[in-house]
Amino acid sequence: MSDAARRTTPDRGATVEMIEEAAASGRVREIFDDIKRTKQIDFVPNFWKTLAAHPPLLEDTWQRLKRVMAPGALDARTKEMLAVAASSTNGCAYCINSHTAAAMRLGMTAEMYGELLEVVALFNATNTLADAFQVRPDVFP
Amino acid sequence: MSDAARRTTPDRGATVEMIEEAAASGRVREIFDDIKRTKQIDFVPNFWKTLAAHPPLLEDTWQRLKRVMAPGALDARTKEMLAVAASSTNGCAYCINSHTAAAMRLGMTAEMYGELLEVVALFNATNTLADAFQVRPDVFP
Amino acid sequence: MSDAARRTTPDRGATVEMIEEAAASGRVREIFDDIKRTKQIDFVPNFWKTLAAHPPLLEDTWQRLKRVMAPGALDARTKEMLAVAASSTNGCAYCINSHTAAAMRLGMTAEMYGELLEVVALFNATNTLADAFQVRPDVFP
Amino acid sequence: MSDAARRTTPDRGATVEMIEEAAASGRVREIFDDIKRTKQIDFVPNFWKTLAAHPPLLEDTWQRLKRVMAPGALDARTKEMLAVAASSTNGCAYCINSHTAAAMRLGMTAEMYGELLEVVALFNATNTLADAFQVRPDVFP
Amino acid sequence: MSDAARRTTPDRGATVEMIEEAAASGRVREIFDDIKRTKQIDFVPNFWKTLAAHPPLLEDTWQRLKRVMAPGALDARTKEMLAVAASSTNGCAYCINSHTAAAMRLGMTAEMYGELLEVVALFNATNTLADAFQVRPDVFP
Amino acid sequence: MSDAARRTTPDRGATVEMIEEAAASGRVREIFDDIKRTKQIDFVPNFWKTLAAHPPLLEDTWQRLKRVMAPGALDARTKEMLAVAASSTNGCAYCINSHTAAAMRLGMTAEMYGELLEVVALFNATNTLADAFQVRPDVFP
Repeated sequence: MSDAARRTTPDRGATVEMIEEAAASGRVREIFDDIKRTKQIDFVPNFWKTLAAHPPLLEDTWQRLKRVMAPGALDARTKEMLAVAASSTNGCAYCINSHTAAAMRLGMTAEMYGELLEVVALFNATNTLADAFQVRPDVFP
Repeated sequence: MSDAARRTTPDRGATVEMIEEAAASGRVREIFDDIKRTKQIDFVPNFWKTLAAHPPLLEDTWQRLKRVMAPGALDARTKEMLAVAASSTNGCAYCINSHTAAAMRLGMTAEMYGELLEVVALFNATNTLADAFQVRPDVFP
Repeated sequence: MSDAARRTTPDRGATVEMIEEAAASGRVREIFDDIKRTKQIDFVPNFWKTLAAHPPLLEDTWQRLKRVMAPGALDARTKEMLAVAASSTNGCAYCINSHTAAAMRLGMTAEMYGELLEVVALFNATNTLADAFQVRPDVFP
Repeated sequence: MSDAARRTTPDRGATVEMIEEAAASGRVREIFDDIKRTKQIDFVPNFWKTLAAHPPLLEDTWQRLKRVMAPGALDARTKEMLAVAASSTNGCAYCINSHTAAAMRLGMTAEMYGELLEVVALFNATNTLADAFQVRPDVFP
Repeated sequence: MSDAARRTTPDRGATVEMIEEAAASGRVREIFDDIKRTKQIDFVPNFWKTLAAHPPLLEDTWQRLKRVMAPGALDARTKEMLAVAASSTNGCAYCINSHTAAAMRLGMTAEMYGELLEVVALFNATNTLADAFQVRPDVFP
Repeated sequence: MSDAARRTTPDRGATVEMIEEAAASGRVREIFDDIKRTKQIDFVPNFWKTLAAHPPLLEDTWQRLKRVMAPGALDARTKEMLAVAASSTNGCAYCINSHTAAAMRLGMTAEMYGELLEVVALFNATNTLADAFQVRPDVFP
């Protein structure tokens, strides 16, 4: 591929057009504002601008995420770390990036992050072993 | 399938013979004892009896798990909850069962468990959306 | 990494050299022509140019795909939508892009696409819940 | 394991106690009734009796599933088939069983089911090939 | 299985009726015979009896497996070990069992099997780490 | 996105700063030297420079990989091919690239590589079929 072609060739292509903030109106705009307010950021992440192409999916996903990620029996940082654990296991680059950043904003230190990934890597190995050996369930005494 | 056939037909077949505690000797026995002492349980779970069929794998996996799961920047319960998050995302039945039980022994309440699974289920959904829409990474302002 | 280095550094590296159309001959050329004719496109997608590095893999994969994706009890568009569902669940970027494009060429509307992803995201969440809770199979009455 | 032990040992252990219909009250009972009415079945599947252990998860998952699976731009059967595609790719036994049964109740024939699985199997193979060869995205002419 | 047994049991339910050998005729019977001859076994494994419910899927899968698993640049045992690696990574119980058994019949020793699983478990851990840290591709000097 | 924006926007963002060779000291430097010596390469791959941000993870992962990948009952090339099989099934780009390159350095020919991917692709398809049809385990006669 020529250098010129390469520069204009996205490495991967979004499958829909994002709704930019300036173009958002009505309920989409309200949700965009709620996202920025709730997450205390001053821009709308691409994930949400993409979901906005399908308003019911935006509405449903945001309401659910807002409720689920609010502090409860588990604090917000632990929840973001669980999100990193699931996203890393799935290998979802966008989600790994955004939730690692979010957990750090909530006080996850470098040491905590290192331990988090040690745990997640370990269990991706032991999960495979348990499945491969077809280990029978324990009968708890 | 007849009842008789069923009784002799394992639903799934372990691929190696487990080393039972009574049959363990030498280094394998020491590790079995260390497992019971460290985890404060009075039996050796099937996972470890299975790995014992390949002593280097038992040695390596146990030493690593013992180090990684010890409290550090993250406490033991949070680590077990991360193990549940990874195992649930992978759908590994044996691991889900043993780590859910372990997290509960360490004080995970029913409410914490419910929130844990809400987070994990949510991110298995949003991971798929981010991948499916090929969402571009955010340029942090 | 310097800017110059970055521009010449592929983000990811194909593991084999693709066979370009101009270089194709014999059976590979025939398959390339069949791909363009069957899919009604005027270029050979990179996937097929890559498989051509191993002709038996090209032959086998193309014959199978051609047979499987032909309209039958399910129409071609539904089949492409199922391909998007599987590829999105696996997070395979190349496949997501090409099959989303193919489904759109076959008439999948933006609304249909939104609903498709809602379903796929939902079941990636509920699959995790069913596995995590180790839900027992229903005994149908 | 003795034969007697085996007979009383669940092959896998649910991680929470299900809420049986007779024990359900208030909002949980209303949702149980809504599930039976909406799905036109006369029992509550184990998945929902399990989620009921965490009412917010039951409420949220059911409302979402009810909205997402209702006919829209895609009909109900196509949606169930997409659910089978995602669940099969994930290997979630409970979900595969319940959604295959649901799609059949909605008219999926044996032939349609065979074609569905052909498509899903094919794309699990080609997804792996595209990832393994690191195929570069096509530049659409 | 009796109705009574069914109500009190199945851990998981096959989604189609298998075609038993005695009931097979025509092309299905020929393929069944070819499977027994090629694999040098005297029964037809359940996988193939299940695929027989959809003859084109049986035909296509068997022809492909027969060609792909035949010795070539890689010997038959190495190919079965690769099958175990892929199946273990996916956690597919049926496939793990049958291919572990097949590799053993072809001479995989207990020591080789232990090393195989060590490698597979290791890379399930390092794959997660590479994804989680979003490691940039190396620029080979 | 403007060309200028694109050039400054990483396609994906590493979540930690790598430790460059020039900045490494003490145990990290020793491990870096061991990696170059053992793998007979004259640079430290990004994966290891990234893990170095968390020294215990670097130490543990390197010691384990060094032990596991050393020739034993299986030769080094077969082990690298198993690593490609697992990484391809997981779709981990970095790992696919580095282990495909490593297997080639150890003598994997283009033909062997083609057969490797045929096997891996085939079993990603049949794994899905076995799971989707919920094939019951064989009762070996």
